[in-house]
Amino acid sequence: MIPYKTILIIDRSNRQPIYLQLTHQFIDLIKSKTIPSNTKLPSSRLLSDLVGVHRKTIVACYDELILQGWIISIPKKGTYVNSTIPELQQQWTDNLLQSRAKISGFSFSKNDILQRTFPQAFQDDFIYVNDGVSDERLTPIKELATIYRKLAGKKETLKHIGYGTTFGNLKLREVLVEYLNETRGLNITIDNILITRGSQMGMFLASQLLIENEEYFIIGETNYSSADTTFQYANAKLLRVKVDENGLDTKAIEQLCRRYNVKAVYTTSHHHHPTTVTLSAERRMHLLNLAKTHSFAVLEDDYDYDFHYNHAPILPLASHDTNGNVIYVGSICKTVAPVFRVGYLIASKDFVDECANLRRFIDRQGDAVLELTFAHFIKEGSLDRHINKVVRAYKDRRDFFCEYLKQELGDYLSFKTPKGGMAIWVTLNKKYSWKEVVKIAAQNKLIFSEWQRYDSANTNHNAVRIGFARYTKEEAKEFVLRLKKTILQLV
Amino acid sequence: MIPYKTILIIDRSNRQPIYLQLTHQFIDLIKSKTIPSNTKLPSSRLLSDLVGVHRKTIVACYDELILQGWIISIPKKGTYVNSTIPELQQQWTDNLLQSRAKISGFSFSKNDILQRTFPQAFQDDFIYVNDGVSDERLTPIKELATIYRKLAGKKETLKHIGYGTTFGNLKLREVLVEYLNETRGLNITIDNILITRGSQMGMFLASQLLIENEEYFIIGETNYSSADTTFQYANAKLLRVKVDENGLDTKAIEQLCRRYNVKAVYTTSHHHHPTTVTLSAERRMHLLNLAKTHSFAVLEDDYDYDFHYNHAPILPLASHDTNGNVIYVGSICKTVAPVFRVGYLIASKDFVDECANLRRFIDRQGDAVLELTFAHFIKEGSLDRHINKVVRAYKDRRDFFCEYLKQELGDYLSFKTPKGGMAIWVTLNKKYSWKEVVKIAAQNKLIFSEWQRYDSANTNHNAVRIGFARYTKEEAKEFVLRLKKTILQLV
Repeated sequence: MIPYKTILIIDRSNRQPIYLQLTHQFIDLIKSKTIPSNTKLPSSRLLSDLVGVHRKTIVACYDELILQGWIISIPKKGTYVNSTIPELQQQWTDNLLQSRAKISGFSFSKNDILQRTFPQAFQDDFIYVNDGVSDERLTPIKELATIYRKLAGKKETLKHIGYGTTFGNLKLREVLVEYLNETRGLNITIDNILITRGSQMGMFLASQLLIENEEYFIIGETNYSSADTTFQYANAKLLRVKVDENGLDTKAIEQLCRRYNVKAVYTTSHHHHPTTVTLSAERRMHLLNLAKTHSFAVLEDDYDYDFHYNHAPILPLASHDTNGNVIYVGSICKTVAPVFRVGYLIASKDFVDECANLRRFIDRQGDAVLELTFAHFIKEGSLDRHINKVVRAYKDRRDFFCEYLKQELGDYLSFKTPKGGMAIWVTLNKKYSWKEVVKIAAQNKLIFSEWQRYDSANTNHNAVRIGFARYTKEEAKEFVLRLKKTILQLV
Repeated sequence: MIPYKTILIIDRSNRQPIYLQLTHQFIDLIKSKTIPSNTKLPSSRLLSDLVGVHRKTIVACYDELILQGWIISIPKKGTYVNSTIPELQQQWTDNLLQSRAKISGFSFSKNDILQRTFPQAFQDDFIYVNDGVSDERLTPIKELATIYRKLAGKKETLKHIGYGTTFGNLKLREVLVEYLNETRGLNITIDNILITRGSQMGMFLASQLLIENEEYFIIGETNYSSADTTFQYANAKLLRVKVDENGLDTKAIEQLCRRYNVKAVYTTSHHHHPTTVTLSAERRMHLLNLAKTHSFAVLEDDYDYDFHYNHAPILPLASHDTNGNVIYVGSICKTVAPVFRVGYLIASKDFVDECANLRRFIDRQGDAVLELTFAHFIKEGSLDRHINKVVRAYKDRRDFFCEYLKQELGDYLSFKTPKGGMAIWVTLNKKYSWKEVVKIAAQNKLIFSEWQRYDSANTNHNAVRIGFARYTKEEAKEFVLRLKKTILQLV
């Protein structure tokens, strides 16, 4: 007989009931043919003595094995291992501990487009250069969590926690329609808005639906690299146009439209990503006219609308669009905190409907409790108050960061102080290269990740984008000093 | 001169400052050429008199228009509308109110695969038949919200609210690795798990990555229709095999493997969706052996593992997989509440890494505060307690629902009481058809949506799936009575 006494191990500290622990061990023994097919199992009385558990536990274990089909009970004869179970063709280690293979047992090819070097883990004493993110310490997280907790206590909220609409919570859509119409000069109704997880999902949905086969998307010579990837993943062919101090060169777009069947133009009109320039009024009108003439979509990513320091925010292209050409994506992730994945896609009803159809198969629906929380947060004026607070803080931070950087490193690099946003575009003097700087900087615990992506078109502009909004004065100083130390090592 | 006094409208109740209201109205007037190019604007003093606001307000408005490039200021001459702004080729209504087009100004084709008839709005006195969902009234939403609020108050949590890893919150991954290893007999490490938004995102990611060109996926003759759609959207060619009382016919799968290059087999092994049968032990081993021999992936969707009433849960295929063939997706959405979109994808490290790469471009990252909340909820044993509570409730509900349905409608339909899950598979007697029932039922405020999807392969099985877990006794009675009323109208 198989030495059940030594082979079966009971762990009384485990959360699994003992009968189930035994059941799973029996399954392993049967699978591995340690107990071969047709083996007669010991009676429940005998096994309970051997293993030192109550007989009822063994009965429950055998019942379970019978139910699952691993063993069969033949009246008056006994209990046998089912002979029809095929032997599992897998490798087994001696102690029956299965370990997962490191490599998949099926083939799939890694998509070059998706490979990124973004760090997945962060160490405390390192500075990770960002491309313009908000300071999580200024986030009204307690205020939001309090609204969340309050809503959770309401019976009314229960209506929202089951399977619901893929368009997003109705209350938030209503509040956002009003808010966006007032603050961005849009003129939309509830039919024009889909709640997404941040702008990224909006871009994913839009590009998936716009591109049937390989179609042309126009982007800037420098461009937000995650947008490039999203469009390439959707099979877009990318055409690039120059970006100068007035933004995308719309004359170049006009020329491309004559040669190619252009499906969409992507623009970060408020502050071009990465160079931070604003698309001029003249080019805005030109771009909208081209869109109408050539029936292409303008995918407008208004990622930092709320951040402007010297003047009023510039109304998005979407506010001038009466022909249904603009797909407008934005979010409150950048404004509040990246963790709160609440964004929106604004477009004509037909396109919004189709985006909702696709969204159903990506993540089914959003988090309605969080969406309701933001509906209250906006309605109560808390978002406006939060924006006022952080815009003041970020304006001061911009001023300090830019002055200090110029003072300490003005001989080695140059930049224009941007009118808004959370980042600057820094060009290194020709004598030096970011490639070298990035390498040495890592030794000084200053990590520039994915800096190559700022020059996907290989124009050798020798510039990178550096976020300032997250840094207090002390942190800004530390950043600049580490960068200075790095550059002086190269001089 | 243009009648500025009547054309410019000031709304003191609006959240926009007055200078901005005027700015936006000027932009509209310039865009529409109501104020033509090169027009000289009135002096700030004159305009402030006309409109009845302080002169400083007009100065701020003009400054803004100059900054944005709509007007230019010529020293000693005055302020003029910029002549280089192109006329916008869009239709304008008389009162300058822009209304969004209903139809997009670009072409895109609706994808037939994505068209669904799932209701997007729900009326109170209607019953919407579901395919097996939990009862939101049993959700520990207050307990969860309290943990959420507590976490939000901790300084430590701020680390988690910025841009972070696309793999999901580390703490939750650690807790889930331990929890899944203990409860599902997996033997995984942190490298094998990606946190997703529910199982749907796991299926979306996996199918996108498995299918490069058109490749074959094997599914059941009846199958979870959202899975069908997800695979078709990813360009899979679907091959169907019969499903009997032991689940998917693995001999048929073996035969298909000889003829086709099979990329994956999709299985809801615990309770087949929609028919609720369990995949037998024999077939489980057979399927894993086939997967190894033919190097295909087994996409195992364990959507209702926690719900079993007569015996212990059956360990998933993933617990027997040492060759890296199984991609296991699951979630706590079904168990807790659909609104909490927290799920997981378990696979070999290489595949998990690639899924994380793609996920970055879909929604960037998850909600780390919610993920942390669930880490605590599981660690504290609250998930186990919740499962114990609802399993007891749903067992009672199953028993009542099945008995009552049989008693009232046993002459017209048949079903097997399932051993687990949250739904039953109901076959109508041949004399009747669900097509007719569904039509009349709607008149009785009983809505069967998407019932056709249970027979995508057109086998005329005359059955639909009906969820019972959400209904109290009273609600179950009301459901059965409305269905009875409907059927009697047809007799």
